[in-house]
Amino acid sequence: MQTLNVALGERAYPIHIGENLLSSGDLLLPHLKRKQVAIVTNTTVAPLYLEKIAQPLRDAGVAVISVILPDGEQYKNSATLGLIYDALLQNRCERGTTLIALGGGVVGDLTGYAAATYLRGVPFIQVPTTLLAQVDSSVGGKTGINHPLGKNMIGAFYQPQVVLADTLTLDTLPDRELSAGLAEVIKYGLIRDADFFVWLEQNIGRLLVREPQALAYAIHRSCVNKAEVVAADERESGERALLNLGHTFGHAVENGMGYGVWLHGEAVAAGTMLAADLSRRMGWLSDNDILRMQKIFDTANLPTKAPALGIDVYLGLMGLDKKVVDGKVRLVLQQGIGKAVVTGDYPAQLLRETLQSIEHA
Amino acid sequence: MQTLNVALGERAYPIHIGENLLSSGDLLLPHLKRKQVAIVTNTTVAPLYLEKIAQPLRDAGVAVISVILPDGEQYKNSATLGLIYDALLQNRCERGTTLIALGGGVVGDLTGYAAATYLRGVPFIQVPTTLLAQVDSSVGGKTGINHPLGKNMIGAFYQPQVVLADTLTLDTLPDRELSAGLAEVIKYGLIRDADFFVWLEQNIGRLLVREPQALAYAIHRSCVNKAEVVAADERESGERALLNLGHTFGHAVENGMGYGVWLHGEAVAAGTMLAADLSRRMGWLSDNDILRMQKIFDTANLPTKAPALGIDVYLGLMGLDKKVVDGKVRLVLQQGIGKAVVTGDYPAQLLRETLQSIEHA
Repeated sequence: MQTLNVALGERAYPIHIGENLLSSGDLLLPHLKRKQVAIVTNTTVAPLYLEKIAQPLRDAGVAVISVILPDGEQYKNSATLGLIYDALLQNRCERGTTLIALGGGVVGDLTGYAAATYLRGVPFIQVPTTLLAQVDSSVGGKTGINHPLGKNMIGAFYQPQVVLADTLTLDTLPDRELSAGLAEVIKYGLIRDADFFVWLEQNIGRLLVREPQALAYAIHRSCVNKAEVVAADERESGERALLNLGHTFGHAVENGMGYGVWLHGEAVAAGTMLAADLSRRMGWLSDNDILRMQKIFDTANLPTKAPALGIDVYLGLMGLDKKVVDGKVRLVLQQGIGKAVVTGDYPAQLLRETLQSIEHA
Repeated sequence: MQTLNVALGERAYPIHIGENLLSSGDLLLPHLKRKQVAIVTNTTVAPLYLEKIAQPLRDAGVAVISVILPDGEQYKNSATLGLIYDALLQNRCERGTTLIALGGGVVGDLTGYAAATYLRGVPFIQVPTTLLAQVDSSVGGKTGINHPLGKNMIGAFYQPQVVLADTLTLDTLPDRELSAGLAEVIKYGLIRDADFFVWLEQNIGRLLVREPQALAYAIHRSCVNKAEVVAADERESGERALLNLGHTFGHAVENGMGYGVWLHGEAVAAGTMLAADLSRRMGWLSDNDILRMQKIFDTANLPTKAPALGIDVYLGLMGLDKKVVDGKVRLVLQQGIGKAVVTGDYPAQLLRETLQSIEHA
């Protein structure tokens, strides 16, 4: 087991990464304020892992309730959030009750937001069971829900007490979701860790066959990268925005296609290639950089072509994004592999050419 | 104009108290991150004060949108919160948009919570237009909404940039709401400021006829008291709970009668007398203390008798309260005028006798 400490001012917490951590109550018990937990999970994950985590806690005298949500990005909304509140209130959960998020990013975001807002804040623990959640939502404290007019529009910054990233849970992950998680792993290489990108080019095959050591290494290194960025900029005023490489385009893809049609990681991969295309048009990326990116995404079975939604649809959807400052859409662009910048200073015409290239592909 | 600085660690903000502050854009402009505001108010306050505050801002080049909510405690819910989010998103409000809460406690709580959660947090300013909101919700950062199963169950701690308490807005306040606000003013005297209680006994008549100097003094002294408590205990782990004198009983009254039938301050007055009755049974308050309390509430036109809901209804409603720790209902009780304590250490039989006394009254 590897442990990484995420230091965020007065709030710091450990991430434990390894095999078969779920059933070790010892990793959770020291972090409970009282012996009362509510495990929030979904219909897919519950049959696989709910009892694995609940039983050792019960054995240690912890009162455990569970809240089982429908599975899917389309349920990351205020109605599902209401189901969590209802269950907590019906069970008279108090301020010392710890919420445990057992599942992927949707469960983590919903549960974290419920924890941030139930009784104005109760403790919370993340047990991410997808690669995406392990490398992304386990660091940074972003929680929230979607709104019909935009993704992640409602939310809070709220840090967990501890994160358990159990590589065994990835064994049951569908191939498509494993690939979607790899999109975010690759992103860390692209924005700030060229050596990691080279490691990924050499080891992507080991990750695809779910070799535990390779997975643990990639998760750990991804979390280290994310933690460094977040620690420097907890509230996303500056460097943290780099983590959104591919996300402005990607959110437009997810939103334009209807939430849930494309997986988040798939949209990010295609969005990253759009950002790369714009970066290349600006002279910041070489044709060879583009080829390396294309190749690693292809190998990871990720889409590199965005869907043809029409230029105006893209621009409209991108305009609603949180990264808008004074009406100007700021984008994360690359200046080589391993270096990204946030800028609103690109020719609008080149952005149109990039979006045009989708339609003509 | 008097100014009080509320110091809360890294977050500090001023409260300006005085006559005719609303139309002075100068007090607001320095606190705007960008020249974009969304004023959230209700159908009662909008015709009286919306333009008074909006016009000077527009004159200074600020883009102003307004969100006008239905008026009433029964609208402090997730549906009304959704109206604010919808308006912000439809107007493409960004992270630099400041939300201004113009109204009473319901508008303040809803708007503060919307500000805490829209795009994971945007700046917010309070312009409370009721006495209750000026002396209570303007200090402490509590924001939130009700849930069908309990009051203020969903929320966040979130501090404003600045508070304007304009005594002129109290001129249009219905008598009943002025009295409800006085319940909270009197509370500060009861829990920690015996001298202020004596001042109130001597000056309650001046407050009832809305003499501006007396109002400003009472608002200022109330806010000083609350700020001292909150600064010592921002997250309500200890002393801050004293501010809930009368509230556990009072919430049961509000909830049991149906939100909106009793005003919050009315329920707090009756609840305070219930807490005082229990304190007297424990030998902590004298008969004379009770008479003084009875008299000041009577003079302020506040109810001192709680409604007969039945003992079990009271106990059930009190059990859902946030102040429950490990299943035991902790109450704020008095040990004399000017001194309150939080305790779960009272004989259950005496609590039943207190509740019984309502039924036989």
